[in-house]
Amino acid sequence: MSLNSFGHLFRVTTWGESHGPALGATVDGCPPNVPVTPEMLQVWLDKRRPGQNKNTTQRNEPDAVKILSGVFEGKTTGTPIQLMIENTDQRSRDYGEISQTFRPGHADITYHQKYGNRDYRGGGRSSARETAARVAAGGVARAAIKTLVPGLEIKGYMTRMGEMGIDRSTFDWDAIDQNDFWIPNGAATAQTWEEYLQALRKAHDSVGAEIEVVARGLPAGLGAPIYGKLDTDLAAAMMSINAVKGVEIGEGMAAARLKGTENADEIFLGDDGQPVYSSNHAGGILGGISTGQDVVVRFAVKPTSSILSPRKSIRIDGSATEVITKGRHDPCVGIRAVPVAEAMMACVVLDHLLLHRGQIGENQGRIG
Amino acid sequence: MSLNSFGHLFRVTTWGESHGPALGATVDGCPPNVPVTPEMLQVWLDKRRPGQNKNTTQRNEPDAVKILSGVFEGKTTGTPIQLMIENTDQRSRDYGEISQTFRPGHADITYHQKYGNRDYRGGGRSSARETAARVAAGGVARAAIKTLVPGLEIKGYMTRMGEMGIDRSTFDWDAIDQNDFWIPNGAATAQTWEEYLQALRKAHDSVGAEIEVVARGLPAGLGAPIYGKLDTDLAAAMMSINAVKGVEIGEGMAAARLKGTENADEIFLGDDGQPVYSSNHAGGILGGISTGQDVVVRFAVKPTSSILSPRKSIRIDGSATEVITKGRHDPCVGIRAVPVAEAMMACVVLDHLLLHRGQIGENQGRIG
Amino acid sequence: MSLNSFGHLFRVTTWGESHGPALGATVDGCPPNVPVTPEMLQVWLDKRRPGQNKNTTQRNEPDAVKILSGVFEGKTTGTPIQLMIENTDQRSRDYGEISQTFRPGHADITYHQKYGNRDYRGGGRSSARETAARVAAGGVARAAIKTLVPGLEIKGYMTRMGEMGIDRSTFDWDAIDQNDFWIPNGAATAQTWEEYLQALRKAHDSVGAEIEVVARGLPAGLGAPIYGKLDTDLAAAMMSINAVKGVEIGEGMAAARLKGTENADEIFLGDDGQPVYSSNHAGGILGGISTGQDVVVRFAVKPTSSILSPRKSIRIDGSATEVITKGRHDPCVGIRAVPVAEAMMACVVLDHLLLHRGQIGENQGRIG
Amino acid sequence: MSLNSFGHLFRVTTWGESHGPALGATVDGCPPNVPVTPEMLQVWLDKRRPGQNKNTTQRNEPDAVKILSGVFEGKTTGTPIQLMIENTDQRSRDYGEISQTFRPGHADITYHQKYGNRDYRGGGRSSARETAARVAAGGVARAAIKTLVPGLEIKGYMTRMGEMGIDRSTFDWDAIDQNDFWIPNGAATAQTWEEYLQALRKAHDSVGAEIEVVARGLPAGLGAPIYGKLDTDLAAAMMSINAVKGVEIGEGMAAARLKGTENADEIFLGDDGQPVYSSNHAGGILGGISTGQDVVVRFAVKPTSSILSPRKSIRIDGSATEVITKGRHDPCVGIRAVPVAEAMMACVVLDHLLLHRGQIGENQGRIG
Repeated sequence: MSLNSFGHLFRVTTWGESHGPALGATVDGCPPNVPVTPEMLQVWLDKRRPGQNKNTTQRNEPDAVKILSGVFEGKTTGTPIQLMIENTDQRSRDYGEISQTFRPGHADITYHQKYGNRDYRGGGRSSARETAARVAAGGVARAAIKTLVPGLEIKGYMTRMGEMGIDRSTFDWDAIDQNDFWIPNGAATAQTWEEYLQALRKAHDSVGAEIEVVARGLPAGLGAPIYGKLDTDLAAAMMSINAVKGVEIGEGMAAARLKGTENADEIFLGDDGQPVYSSNHAGGILGGISTGQDVVVRFAVKPTSSILSPRKSIRIDGSATEVITKGRHDPCVGIRAVPVAEAMMACVVLDHLLLHRGQIGENQGRIG
Repeated sequence: MSLNSFGHLFRVTTWGESHGPALGATVDGCPPNVPVTPEMLQVWLDKRRPGQNKNTTQRNEPDAVKILSGVFEGKTTGTPIQLMIENTDQRSRDYGEISQTFRPGHADITYHQKYGNRDYRGGGRSSARETAARVAAGGVARAAIKTLVPGLEIKGYMTRMGEMGIDRSTFDWDAIDQNDFWIPNGAATAQTWEEYLQALRKAHDSVGAEIEVVARGLPAGLGAPIYGKLDTDLAAAMMSINAVKGVEIGEGMAAARLKGTENADEIFLGDDGQPVYSSNHAGGILGGISTGQDVVVRFAVKPTSSILSPRKSIRIDGSATEVITKGRHDPCVGIRAVPVAEAMMACVVLDHLLLHRGQIGENQGRIG
Repeated sequence: MSLNSFGHLFRVTTWGESHGPALGATVDGCPPNVPVTPEMLQVWLDKRRPGQNKNTTQRNEPDAVKILSGVFEGKTTGTPIQLMIENTDQRSRDYGEISQTFRPGHADITYHQKYGNRDYRGGGRSSARETAARVAAGGVARAAIKTLVPGLEIKGYMTRMGEMGIDRSTFDWDAIDQNDFWIPNGAATAQTWEEYLQALRKAHDSVGAEIEVVARGLPAGLGAPIYGKLDTDLAAAMMSINAVKGVEIGEGMAAARLKGTENADEIFLGDDGQPVYSSNHAGGILGGISTGQDVVVRFAVKPTSSILSPRKSIRIDGSATEVITKGRHDPCVGIRAVPVAEAMMACVVLDHLLLHRGQIGENQGRIG
Repeated sequence: MSLNSFGHLFRVTTWGESHGPALGATVDGCPPNVPVTPEMLQVWLDKRRPGQNKNTTQRNEPDAVKILSGVFEGKTTGTPIQLMIENTDQRSRDYGEISQTFRPGHADITYHQKYGNRDYRGGGRSSARETAARVAAGGVARAAIKTLVPGLEIKGYMTRMGEMGIDRSTFDWDAIDQNDFWIPNGAATAQTWEEYLQALRKAHDSVGAEIEVVARGLPAGLGAPIYGKLDTDLAAAMMSINAVKGVEIGEGMAAARLKGTENADEIFLGDDGQPVYSSNHAGGILGGISTGQDVVVRFAVKPTSSILSPRKSIRIDGSATEVITKGRHDPCVGIRAVPVAEAMMACVVLDHLLLHRGQIGENQGRIG
């Protein structure tokens, strides 16, 4: 049991602090003979990387991933894969005040209360920078999934940023990669979102976000009762991302308002002999096991607590203070959560593919 | 790794099917010398038990728990505690049709697609009856918590049932135990909820629910980055409960709409030298670690799929059918989820109390 | 993490005390659709059962196993299997002295020093009776192995009992089941062993034993570097059996005396295109992974500490005393360790079959 | 569950191959505020390092450890500690033949049969070089133990190398660090061992070894029934070391030859009110829990299979060949296993110290 690990058979342990020499992920249990190169992983890291557009932090880290083990001649060997990202942009600065002060809404105070010792530089272990390691690990998971279920697709997008919400009636899967917010709407909408965010930035404020991730093409039968449910693992995976405060599967919290007659996804037999459903209120998971429909996960990210507006707080010695967080911070950390969530989805999905194969092999139940 | 287990040091494994001879929980890692008797556990089981009022299923199971091991002369020994609940109300009946048919919105089809073999009697392993085992295990956790943090209180209540929502302006902690819905409002409100639910029952329908669970008096410092966060484990624990589709901590999904200036919980030093906060948007958890404030978890339960209204489906052989689920089913399974959620909270909290003591002992950080 | 569990994918948790109402095993991760009946498990339990011959304890327990969950219509469902054995022969007696005294060589004192609370009746949790639960779980494992690798055979036998050692030059695989000591030698040898043991019993003494277990027909490729090695898991499995003090793979401790030229198992290509070896010093495992040869594990069991000869000890209050352990005790507990060791081997082998399938599927490496 | 990890609360995952860019250990669960510096770890690595004397391989690796995370201002933070050792001595060479051939007694063939893909350079993941990562992790464990149980001492030494065995009648604890073989005998004995080993080297042969590790000053009460026994975890830890074929606790395999009257460690009350024992056949562990006596573990290392004498084998294509392993290889790998075994003991002991504190706190049982 490592509290910095997740996954059962495909197991990821992340390590590292924001301003230490490096951070990374130790990935164990990957199938052998999967083509993996640093370039393949870099694609996903570049998507998450700060400094790429004016809506995210201006910190400029190349976030170049190195593969230190577990890959030989371009293919995984089945042994642990060590993925390292060196921290290159560690500006020399005076941490005197921040080392003694707790930022409201930040993990500063709880790390201190737990450990009595924290790396206060850039948030240390609690920095969102840790998510780079997840994205690298997710790249490995994606590569392995490709060899197991070639058509499986994983896609994340923003559905809300403060007062801005997407228009589901014009949902455009292809638009997602064509704007800075990963929204499934056109450029005009993205332009509105950008103006909203720049206004917030100028007001020295930040804002929350809602992200949705979909796994399409997942076979039926993945997951396991009762505590290794696919949705249980997905909920834990998303909740573990920095600043996430809620996770939903399918209807999510709205299910509390529904009636049974509204919520039922009726079942038919499709032309290919597989079940098809009249709807997907369940988000592709029944009893913790995938139905073969789209698996739909949604989560909310709180607004970053690192803002330029002064907030009341205390110091380690108990004295009162006011905190203004200067530095390079995203007004909406939710934007960068999109590739992180995709990575977590990929890791959980691969893990359950391997678990299912381990227990069941090719002997799953048939219909028709 | 057992997929039917949860917890790190305090570890619970449940087993059993709805209509088998018995079901139960194997509880490992409980501290020794904790007073535990069947009567102490029965209190919580009776709270969850069906048949207790007209708003839950009419199935009448005494749900009497037996302690088969791990308790000697009324105290835990530190070795595994086996809690068994025999299934006494197994009406003899013909399962012919249900054994061949998949109920829409139910785990029937996914269990079949995964395992090709399922105990179809009463939902088998996927039955909400499994939650009785959690409640028994939660009773053990509560007893152990009492010896470690005597003032700690865990309380769950409904906040929504379909169109009915609680009135937070008249929130009454003491009212919770005085009505059939565990709502923190007065008898008049409970009466309205009951009328609403009875109308649904007559309409052969069911409805979803939202439940909130609070842990009050939890010490600061519990939880651990990054994948063993207190909120990560709570999210997994609640999502593992049957029919749960969403989990929130503090502001939850609403955090997506908030600005940083609104969301910050400002910090002050209280009279007792401990931090106090101006608000609790965080739900008592920062960076995965408890702040010492109330830990607030909320989740949504979908409406039960077992309804008397006909729904379209298929059989194992692929043929089309219509399903009406007769039998004894709650129109709102969310009501019984309240004691289950309390039990899950108790188990997670105890687990993190032990984890913290294991890694940190008495050397946590101090303020002031 | 449960300290009363073992296995990765096929995971067994045992529970129960010698003189409580029952003991058993919670078995999770078994493949579905494996034929399992109580009768199939009973065969192995009867082999371990005390009272079957005059060389083991005279306690007469039917050790009847009940399957409480996870098996439906004679086949496993893939969900947790609860195996319960009720304790029927709990003679009423006065435990006054034994409850206050620590038997030398027994776990009495360490349980007290750890927990400050122990079920002293018949050794409580530390009783060898716990191994009945392993044997039941091993029966499930054997049934699952049969569906995966039909020809795989697991066999244990004694190789030493005090001064008595087997004659390897007349090793007879078929003789093992035909004598009370499970030795691979003829009836004349068994007669000698029996006389030796009866003399020890009359002298109020007990004796140690050495047991060897072989898995024949295991495919090459099972196991995993570095801490999930097949031999690592086997060593842990055997060391977890009561009274075991040493574990060997292949040459075992004798490897310390060998030269590299003596120890090398030379490799050839067999007629069926698979590797064959000139010898099996390695015990069928190289680098933690099976070679396809016989996997050979050997272990030593200490003499039972429960003897009629007086031994010096202390009481809980620190006062000096002399202990004579009356009651029904095996003069050589090693005899009953044979079916237990077979069960542990079966569980570990099945676990690694599933792990291998999970990570590798059908894509293992080929020779030729 | 990671198969490249060990430990429950103090959890170590190693990664890396012999000839990749680096190898290391990810250490999770260490208590915070433990003083740790690279220099402190380097002491232990230097002890294990090849090239230090003429009895070990001539490969010259500085084995300099870098701490990439989890330590801040010289103290552990409680978050994952990443220990990296770069591989600097990677001689460019032609691996053509070795990449196609399986060395007898080596993991070459089983890695190929499992994964179909292996890093054949220097043994890849199966190289003894992996043990450097364990030694670094063990250094962290030692530092943490020092803060918890200051007087606890862990010491390993050789007890046998082929025909050479130590003289226990002149056992000298202080001599261990004063000779190249870590033997507890004087310089004259070490001289005999050296001559024996040099003769073997000249004969192009290698030899096995037996190592004993002692933990002195361990408190009573560490360990846990039934599958998390202290001896179970120690057996797994030692068996996981490369080339180990047998593990013993206390009397070990010799227990099979003992009678109950001989084996009993009688108990008395010592002057300090703690139990003392007349002997230590049990090796300091009863029922899986420490007694407070010396914990004594012994294990055997097989002779290295990499020898200059030709041995028959096959290639990947199935063709026959003869293998001579040139290169820099220890004639007795057992020598370097001494610091590795100490490291494993330290990791297991720390893990059980934390586990015990987690479950029991300060409430262990008392005597007198």
